[in-house]
Amino acid sequence: MSNYAAVMPEVGRIEITEVDEPTPGPRDASVRIEAVGVCGSDTAYYTVGYIGDYVVDGPIILGHECAGEVIAVGPDVSRVRPGDRVAIEPGKPCRDCSECMAGRYHLCPSLVFLATPPYDGSLVQRMAIDERQLFPMPSDMSYEEGALCEPLSVGIWACHRAHLEPGDLVLVTGAGPVGLLAAQVARAFGAASVTVADMAPFRLDMARSLGFETEVAGEGTSRDVDVLLECSGAPNALADGLWRLRTNGRAAMVGMPKQDVSLALSRLNVNELTIGLVNRYAHTWPTAIDLVASGRVDVTSLVTHRFPLDGTADALMLVEHVPDSVKAVITPQQRSS
Amino acid sequence: MSNYAAVMPEVGRIEITEVDEPTPGPRDASVRIEAVGVCGSDTAYYTVGYIGDYVVDGPIILGHECAGEVIAVGPDVSRVRPGDRVAIEPGKPCRDCSECMAGRYHLCPSLVFLATPPYDGSLVQRMAIDERQLFPMPSDMSYEEGALCEPLSVGIWACHRAHLEPGDLVLVTGAGPVGLLAAQVARAFGAASVTVADMAPFRLDMARSLGFETEVAGEGTSRDVDVLLECSGAPNALADGLWRLRTNGRAAMVGMPKQDVSLALSRLNVNELTIGLVNRYAHTWPTAIDLVASGRVDVTSLVTHRFPLDGTADALMLVEHVPDSVKAVITPQQRSS
Amino acid sequence: MSNYAAVMPEVGRIEITEVDEPTPGPRDASVRIEAVGVCGSDTAYYTVGYIGDYVVDGPIILGHECAGEVIAVGPDVSRVRPGDRVAIEPGKPCRDCSECMAGRYHLCPSLVFLATPPYDGSLVQRMAIDERQLFPMPSDMSYEEGALCEPLSVGIWACHRAHLEPGDLVLVTGAGPVGLLAAQVARAFGAASVTVADMAPFRLDMARSLGFETEVAGEGTSRDVDVLLECSGAPNALADGLWRLRTNGRAAMVGMPKQDVSLALSRLNVNELTIGLVNRYAHTWPTAIDLVASGRVDVTSLVTHRFPLDGTADALMLVEHVPDSVKAVITPQQRSS
Amino acid sequence: MSNYAAVMPEVGRIEITEVDEPTPGPRDASVRIEAVGVCGSDTAYYTVGYIGDYVVDGPIILGHECAGEVIAVGPDVSRVRPGDRVAIEPGKPCRDCSECMAGRYHLCPSLVFLATPPYDGSLVQRMAIDERQLFPMPSDMSYEEGALCEPLSVGIWACHRAHLEPGDLVLVTGAGPVGLLAAQVARAFGAASVTVADMAPFRLDMARSLGFETEVAGEGTSRDVDVLLECSGAPNALADGLWRLRTNGRAAMVGMPKQDVSLALSRLNVNELTIGLVNRYAHTWPTAIDLVASGRVDVTSLVTHRFPLDGTADALMLVEHVPDSVKAVITPQQRSS
Repeated sequence: MSNYAAVMPEVGRIEITEVDEPTPGPRDASVRIEAVGVCGSDTAYYTVGYIGDYVVDGPIILGHECAGEVIAVGPDVSRVRPGDRVAIEPGKPCRDCSECMAGRYHLCPSLVFLATPPYDGSLVQRMAIDERQLFPMPSDMSYEEGALCEPLSVGIWACHRAHLEPGDLVLVTGAGPVGLLAAQVARAFGAASVTVADMAPFRLDMARSLGFETEVAGEGTSRDVDVLLECSGAPNALADGLWRLRTNGRAAMVGMPKQDVSLALSRLNVNELTIGLVNRYAHTWPTAIDLVASGRVDVTSLVTHRFPLDGTADALMLVEHVPDSVKAVITPQQRSS
Repeated sequence: MSNYAAVMPEVGRIEITEVDEPTPGPRDASVRIEAVGVCGSDTAYYTVGYIGDYVVDGPIILGHECAGEVIAVGPDVSRVRPGDRVAIEPGKPCRDCSECMAGRYHLCPSLVFLATPPYDGSLVQRMAIDERQLFPMPSDMSYEEGALCEPLSVGIWACHRAHLEPGDLVLVTGAGPVGLLAAQVARAFGAASVTVADMAPFRLDMARSLGFETEVAGEGTSRDVDVLLECSGAPNALADGLWRLRTNGRAAMVGMPKQDVSLALSRLNVNELTIGLVNRYAHTWPTAIDLVASGRVDVTSLVTHRFPLDGTADALMLVEHVPDSVKAVITPQQRSS
Repeated sequence: MSNYAAVMPEVGRIEITEVDEPTPGPRDASVRIEAVGVCGSDTAYYTVGYIGDYVVDGPIILGHECAGEVIAVGPDVSRVRPGDRVAIEPGKPCRDCSECMAGRYHLCPSLVFLATPPYDGSLVQRMAIDERQLFPMPSDMSYEEGALCEPLSVGIWACHRAHLEPGDLVLVTGAGPVGLLAAQVARAFGAASVTVADMAPFRLDMARSLGFETEVAGEGTSRDVDVLLECSGAPNALADGLWRLRTNGRAAMVGMPKQDVSLALSRLNVNELTIGLVNRYAHTWPTAIDLVASGRVDVTSLVTHRFPLDGTADALMLVEHVPDSVKAVITPQQRSS
Repeated sequence: MSNYAAVMPEVGRIEITEVDEPTPGPRDASVRIEAVGVCGSDTAYYTVGYIGDYVVDGPIILGHECAGEVIAVGPDVSRVRPGDRVAIEPGKPCRDCSECMAGRYHLCPSLVFLATPPYDGSLVQRMAIDERQLFPMPSDMSYEEGALCEPLSVGIWACHRAHLEPGDLVLVTGAGPVGLLAAQVARAFGAASVTVADMAPFRLDMARSLGFETEVAGEGTSRDVDVLLECSGAPNALADGLWRLRTNGRAAMVGMPKQDVSLALSRLNVNELTIGLVNRYAHTWPTAIDLVASGRVDVTSLVTHRFPLDGTADALMLVEHVPDSVKAVITPQQRSS
C-alpha cells in the first residue's frame, strides 16, 4: 500500500509523492492522518518560504493541524492503541531542559514541531508520532474537529496569557479561525461579553452566527474592555486595541504583524495595562477536546472549504483567493475531489 | 507665624510666597513639611508646564515626595497625633469607585495627587493632609528618608508589576533615583542578581557603590534576564531591554519616553514575554518604611544635593545643570542656604 | 400605606408587624422588596438564635437574599433611579479600612450585613439600601432570580477561592442551593467536568436534571479531582473530599460543620493540596447577574417552594420539615397564600 | 581504594561497610560525598523504620542532604565536569509524566529520592548521581553549606507555598533546622518582620542570634500575622498558629504531626485563610545556592555537631540525646573522630 504525501519540493509548488512507510520508534504510534487544517503559516511557507527566522531550504511536507487513527504502536507505547481516534499535538519537546521542567515545554529550544523547517508535517497518509502527542477523542468527535484542536489551543492559550477571568468583557480583533476560536474559548471560560472585530463582512457574519457581538475593526469606541485578544496581525490592531482597554486591562498578542509595532506606551500607562506575547500553547489538548466534545466550542462551522490530498495547493491558497473563506481542511486519505 | 511656600506663578518661575495657614478638615492633620524630594515631574512642570494630558494653567505649588511632623489633627483623626513623624503618600483616592474598591486606588479616576495640576504640592511649610496618607516612621528614620519613600514606592510597584520572583536575574535600565531604588528593592525581595545599566559614569559609580553589577546602557549582551525594570525613559531602552529577556521574561515600564515606542513584538513573541505598564503604586508605604528602617534599602546615598526653600528653583534644575547629580531634596523650614 | 415586615421578636417566633417607612439617607434608595430567598443562616437564627459568635439578642428581621424595585432615591444617588429592578448585595462595607482598600471589602471588620445580628434583614415590604449595594437587572430577569444572586455569589467566590481553572475536574459535595449553584458556576467557568455528591436522592435527581454527573456522598472513589467545593457542612465531608484530590488539588470550604474538623494533613501532604476557607464573597454581583441573564446558570429550578410574607415561619422551617425541598423564596408584597 | 558506606542492615543498627564502586550511567557523574546533613526522616527510619507509607524492608543507606566533588562523568554528561564542587538535589523525577511536564516534578509518582525506601542515600564515600541533580557551587561555599541547601530548599518552598509577599509579617513555629532556614528565607524574600516560636530556650537563643524576634510556642498573642510557616510538627501547632493569622492569612504546613490535626475551620473561616500543604520542593537549588553564597542565609550556624562516617549512629540520635543541638553533619571521607 502506497503512502502518499503532499510534498513542497520548492517554494510555491506542491507534488503528490509517494514517501516511505513510517517506522515508529519504541514510543511512537503509526497514525493514519484523516484531517489536516491549513494554517496561515502553511500558506506563508508555500508563498514566500519563511516565517521570521524559520526558512524552508529543502523539500518539506506542510501541515500541523491534524488528527487521525492509530494503526500500529511501538513496543513501549502505553497511552494509545490501534483503533484509537486521536487529536495530534504537533510539538515534541525534549523533556530535559529547564523550560520543559518548568512546565513551559512550548518554549523548549529543542522543540520539534510539525511543518516548521526543517521538520516535515502531516500532509501525508501515514506517519509516526510520539504517543505523548496523541490525545484520544470521544467517538462522536470528527477528525476535522480533532485537527482543529490545534488552532483552538492557540485560542485557549491566548486567554491564559491574557489572564482572562470569569466576568471579563473581551474584545477579539480579527475574525479568522484563531480569532473565532479564541472568542468561543473566552465565552466558555466565563467571559461576561465577547465582541469580535474585523473588516470583512463575511467574517463578521460568521462571528454573529456564532453568537457574538461584532464591530467593524477600528470603529469601536467603548473603553471598558478588560481583555483584548489581538488575533489579526494587522499593523495597527494592537495599538488601536490597547486604547480600548480599561484600567488593569490585559492584552494577548496572537496575530503577528509583519513590521515592528509602534505603541504609545507612555500614554497608555495611566491604565496600567499588561501585554502578553503568545508563542503557541502548552497543556491545552485535554481542554480543547473537552470544549469541542461538550459542544461549548463549535469548530466545524469555521470549515468553509474541504479538499482531497490532491487539492493541497488550492487549499493553501484558499484564503488568498476566495474572499468568503475562513478555514480549509484537507483529507489526506482522499486523492481527488 | 508665617507659612511660606515655593509657588510657581507661571512656567519657569518660582516665588517664595506667604500662603494661608492650613485648615484641616475632620480627618486631616496639619503637617510641618520637613523634606521634599525633587522628581522629574516637578522639573517637567517647571520647564515645559505639562506632562501628557496634565497641564499647568495657573499658579501651582510643586513637590510630592515629602515627609514631616504632625502638628495638629482634626476631630475625627485616630491614626496619627501631634508629634508623629510621618512619611506622606501624595495620592488621595475617592474610596468609592470600582477601582478603589478593587484594591487599585492608584487608578482611581478622582485621585487627588499632590503637585499634579490643578492640585498644589508640598513645597510649603505647613499643609493639611488626610490622616490616611500619613505613615508614622521609626524615630531613627530621617525626614529625608521619609520623603524618599515616594520614589521607593515606584520601585516597589515596578517589581510588583514585573511579577518579580525570588531568584530572578534582574536588569534595571536607568540609574536615576527610581532605577537605583528599584534595583535595591529587587535585591531586597530576593532577586539572585541585579545589574544596573546607564550611560553616565557617575551614576554607574553610584550603582556600583550600592553593590550592583553595572553595564553601559545598550552594550549588554547576556540574554538570560528574567525581569527588566525600565526606569530610564530613553527612546530605545524598552525595545533594547526586551531582547535581553529570556523565555517567560517580564518587563515593567517605569520610564516614560516622550515618543511612541517601536517594538519588534512579532519576533519577541518566541520568548513569550510579558510587559507591564506602571502608573505610580498602591499599598506601598508600610513596605517602603520597613525597607528603609531595616537598612535593606539605602535612600540617603542618592541625595547628592540639598536646598533650603529659597533654593527651590535651583533644585528643580539640578539634574539639568549638574552632571554628577542624582537627587535633590528641599527642606522647606530652611529659608536660605 | 403600611409597611409590613416578618419580625422575629424572639427565637422561634415570627410576627408580621407594621414597621416604620424607610427614610433613605443621601446615597440610599428605597426599595420595594419583591423576593427573599431563605438561607440556612436564617433558619439557624430562627431555630437556635446564633451562628458562631453572632447571637440574636433582640427583635430582628431575617432575610438577606433579596431583590426588588427602586421606588425612591436620596439626593446623592446616581447609580440607580426609581423603576430600576435591582439585585441587592446584602453587605455594606466601611470603604475606609485596610481590608476595604485592599479589595477585600467582604472582610471589613465594620461590615454591616443584612440579617446578621444586630442588623435587620430584608423580610420587609420596603427598606432603604445604599445605592452601591444595588445592581440593576435586565428586564427579563425575575426578582426571584435577582434574590438568588446572593447564594450564586457564594458559588462564584468558592470557585475563586479554589483557584478553579478552565479544564479542571470538579467535585461538589453537598447538593443544597449553594452546592448546585457552585456546580453550575464551575461549569460556566470552563470546568471540564463537574460531579455533585449528596446523600439525598431528591437532590441528586435535581443535580442530574441540571446536567451533572452525581455520586452518593462518601461512596465516590476516583482520585483525579482537581478542585473540591465542599458545600455540605457535613462533619466528614472535607476530610473525605480531600482524599479525592489529585496532586496540586485545591479545596474551598463553603459548608460550615458544627464541630472542629479532623484532617490527616500529614498524609494528605504528598499531593501538596491547598485548602481555602470561604467567607461570603466580593465583587460578584455583575458576574452573577450575567450568568443568570445569559442562561448559563439556572437558579429558578432550585426554588421548590414559594411563600407569601405570612408564610415566613413555614419557609424558615421548609428544609427541616420537607424532605424533597431545596430552596424557599418569600414574596413580601404578598400577605397570604 | 575502598568505598565505605554507613549501611543500616536493620532498624536501629548502622554498620560501616564496604560497598561497590559506583558505575555511572551515560548521564551520571561519580561524586565523592563530602558532607551529609542528618534529617529527622533519617532518624525516623533509624529508630522506627518507617515514615507514613514508606517502610524500610531491607538494608538501606540513609542520608539525602549532601554535597561533594565530581570525580568522573559518563559519556553524555555536559553540565558538570570532574573537579566541580556540587550541591546535590536528592530527587530524580521521570521527566515524562504529567506532573513532571506541568513543572511539578517533585510530585512525580516515579520520583527516585535518596534514602527513601527502597532507594539508598548518600552516607557513602562515592556514588553515581544524574548530572541534572548536581548544582556547581562557588568556590567559597563549603560542602557543609552545599549539603544544607536541601533543608534550605524546604524553607524556600514553604515560602512559595504560603504565597509569601514582600512586606508580610511572618510567624515561624518550630526553631529546628527547617524553621530557622525558612525564617531566613522569609527575611531574604522581603518579609517585613519574622518571629520564631519554639519551646526550647537553646533554639530560641539561636533564632535571636540569627536576628529574629522570638516567642515561646503557644504564648504569642498578636493576631496580625500574614504568613504562618508551621515547621514544628507539634500536634497543636497548626491549629494554634492559624488563630494568629489576620484576614487573608496564608499558612504552609511543613511539620508533620503524627496524628490527625483538628482545626476549627468553621470559626477560622471569617478571616478567609488559605492552608498550603508542602511536599518537599522543586526548582529551588539555584536560589538556595544564591542565598548562601550571597550571605543572605547563614546555614553554618545551625550545624552544632559534626561526625565522621563512623559516627553515623551518634549523629542519627543527636537530636534525641543532646538537648542543645540543632543540626548534625557527617563527613563520609573521615573514618574516625
